[in-house]
Amino acid sequence: MEQRAAPAVTLLTDFGAEDTFVGVVKGVILTIAPGIPVVDLTNVSPRHDIASAAFHLAAAMRFFPQGTVHLVVVDPGVGGERRAVAVETGTAFYVAPDNGVLTFALQQDPPKCAVHLTRPEYRLSRVSATFHGRDVFAPAAAYLAKGVPIRNMGAVIDDLVTIPMPRPTVDNEGVIRGHVQHIDHFGNCITDIPADLIGEPRATILEAGDHVINGMSPSYSAVAPGMALALIGSSGYLEIAVREGSAAESLGLQRGNPVSFRSLSPA
Amino acid sequence: MEQRAAPAVTLLTDFGAEDTFVGVVKGVILTIAPGIPVVDLTNVSPRHDIASAAFHLAAAMRFFPQGTVHLVVVDPGVGGERRAVAVETGTAFYVAPDNGVLTFALQQDPPKCAVHLTRPEYRLSRVSATFHGRDVFAPAAAYLAKGVPIRNMGAVIDDLVTIPMPRPTVDNEGVIRGHVQHIDHFGNCITDIPADLIGEPRATILEAGDHVINGMSPSYSAVAPGMALALIGSSGYLEIAVREGSAAESLGLQRGNPVSFRSLSPA
Amino acid sequence: MEQRAAPAVTLLTDFGAEDTFVGVVKGVILTIAPGIPVVDLTNVSPRHDIASAAFHLAAAMRFFPQGTVHLVVVDPGVGGERRAVAVETGTAFYVAPDNGVLTFALQQDPPKCAVHLTRPEYRLSRVSATFHGRDVFAPAAAYLAKGVPIRNMGAVIDDLVTIPMPRPTVDNEGVIRGHVQHIDHFGNCITDIPADLIGEPRATILEAGDHVINGMSPSYSAVAPGMALALIGSSGYLEIAVREGSAAESLGLQRGNPVSFRSLSPA
Repeated sequence: MEQRAAPAVTLLTDFGAEDTFVGVVKGVILTIAPGIPVVDLTNVSPRHDIASAAFHLAAAMRFFPQGTVHLVVVDPGVGGERRAVAVETGTAFYVAPDNGVLTFALQQDPPKCAVHLTRPEYRLSRVSATFHGRDVFAPAAAYLAKGVPIRNMGAVIDDLVTIPMPRPTVDNEGVIRGHVQHIDHFGNCITDIPADLIGEPRATILEAGDHVINGMSPSYSAVAPGMALALIGSSGYLEIAVREGSAAESLGLQRGNPVSFRSLSPA
Repeated sequence: MEQRAAPAVTLLTDFGAEDTFVGVVKGVILTIAPGIPVVDLTNVSPRHDIASAAFHLAAAMRFFPQGTVHLVVVDPGVGGERRAVAVETGTAFYVAPDNGVLTFALQQDPPKCAVHLTRPEYRLSRVSATFHGRDVFAPAAAYLAKGVPIRNMGAVIDDLVTIPMPRPTVDNEGVIRGHVQHIDHFGNCITDIPADLIGEPRATILEAGDHVINGMSPSYSAVAPGMALALIGSSGYLEIAVREGSAAESLGLQRGNPVSFRSLSPA
Repeated sequence: MEQRAAPAVTLLTDFGAEDTFVGVVKGVILTIAPGIPVVDLTNVSPRHDIASAAFHLAAAMRFFPQGTVHLVVVDPGVGGERRAVAVETGTAFYVAPDNGVLTFALQQDPPKCAVHLTRPEYRLSRVSATFHGRDVFAPAAAYLAKGVPIRNMGAVIDDLVTIPMPRPTVDNEGVIRGHVQHIDHFGNCITDIPADLIGEPRATILEAGDHVINGMSPSYSAVAPGMALALIGSSGYLEIAVREGSAAESLGLQRGNPVSFRSLSPA
């Protein structure tokens, strides 16, 4: 029972741009699934950082066509005991090392079937000990993209490894405490506090490091250039920004820094 | 009256490589216009720098097939008053914030029709206040690429915002004065003095900072490695280079630095 | 006698990401050969460094489909005397300046036919003196990809320029001496000592700088995080790594540094 071919394969790795790792992965995919579009999510995800890649995947995956295959290779355990896995959901396929990198995406897009990728016919004929992105994951993604049913590719499993989800806390006085979970290219600091935890309050106080930001802004351009603001960012989280500047630099914020937020008067 | 589908969409942004912004824009495009080739012009255009992006677009756009859709998102005013626009010319389509980023390209490739992108059916269903690249511009580019007539996408406008064109001056003694408008990956300093202002003189003097370069070279390899030279670069502007080295570093030049040029004996 | 169209064109350059050079090359290719997939091997190969690009190409080219066109532009001699060439082998096509950048790839994938690219109909109509990647090499790659027979594109030659291959030495006592030929994104130090020179010894000593590594590891995860190890890397060379760290940084190694290796007890 062939499925139809995927509309695209995406690639999310920590392989960097200065080697041919990413190109080679695409070569393997194009050899198996000629003509399939391959789209980079990012290939400079921080090295060996599973939580960062999990964040990136969850932010991006819902903007791709139904049936897209997401290939995620941030794999500090390559060559060790960790499994290679593929997951099918109602909207997409995922191929990755079983180290929790899919956790945040699968929270939004629950698995229908997960398999342990063991079948040699869906790998390259020689598998190295150091580059499973090329030898194991790229072929699996390409065969899925071509329409090979996921259950043909290995034994079904129900014990995917997960990593802890960021869990902002809310105390008795309504103070929400979270952290900076990502700093983007513009220096915007994306917290792990989701929009729905905040609601639509009229007056708010956000504290991050020594800085206090009063109120929420609808967009970057609601304040003067160089001014700090708090807003709900494009990924749906509370975000600290500086208009046409870098909040991370201006406010001295780093990933992992604590942030607290409270509403003074509910809407 | 459907037009035919575009041969490609290009992408010119300041989104950087370390987030999934660029990948997400491509996901949106592929969802609407499956299989369309999407080509990066550059995604590390300097942040919020409209003139740099305008330079890049003008240098690149004429090397693409007829009917290409150029999507340009350097958008410091996102979420504010600036309009989102699409432009059709005799050779291409452009989609961008109306902040002047198309100025240099449209100087070469004059508009036939420009529209203010307001129709909700050509946007994502939820439009954020911070990522119009994803929510407004990518869908518009994809629908244009698919053949939707530009006039269906919003009201026709005739007042596109422009930025000042670089205008080298020529004084009574024939001295041309301009500026370094771009420093490329190799450290070559591209001025804003076009080839046709120079002609083909036999002997010339170029001054930049403390440096004087006598004569023009036909190519980088006309001088010894490490030597500075002046030549007409591949974009058609007077360029200062160091063979197999960086003119910007060796001569201490920066973007915006003044350059003067004069011909001692016309051809 | 038309050949069939290529499955892909790959791109290996030192053009960087901050200009539109790479995008423009793709625009030229798509204009001539609409819809062909273009895959980046890397575009941040070290500037003007022919040996690095030769290493990258040789590591990557065998993972692409039969008939792929590999376009390689690291071209310090642009505008000078060096020839532009195209090469056909049993598995692929190559287009490059004739400066030795194809040496390592053609060692693995011997040429069947090489031509000097001189025919104006397979170039852009205006050829600059500084950007042959755009004006000469991209059109040649695109026409090859489209199926134009290589012999139509210029005179056959049999004197391609080569660069020296890395040649590790083995002395009377079996000590293998080589060098670090590449440092990858993870800080792994890839030597020029191929796996088949080492065989499968039981006990080994590798010396690099002040550091001595006893034994070979099957994979990165065979040692504790932060520990140095020696292994055969994914390109088939002896490699020095630090698990979840950078061997280059931890051990102070640089490209070109000498490495010696000996087997204490053969398998």
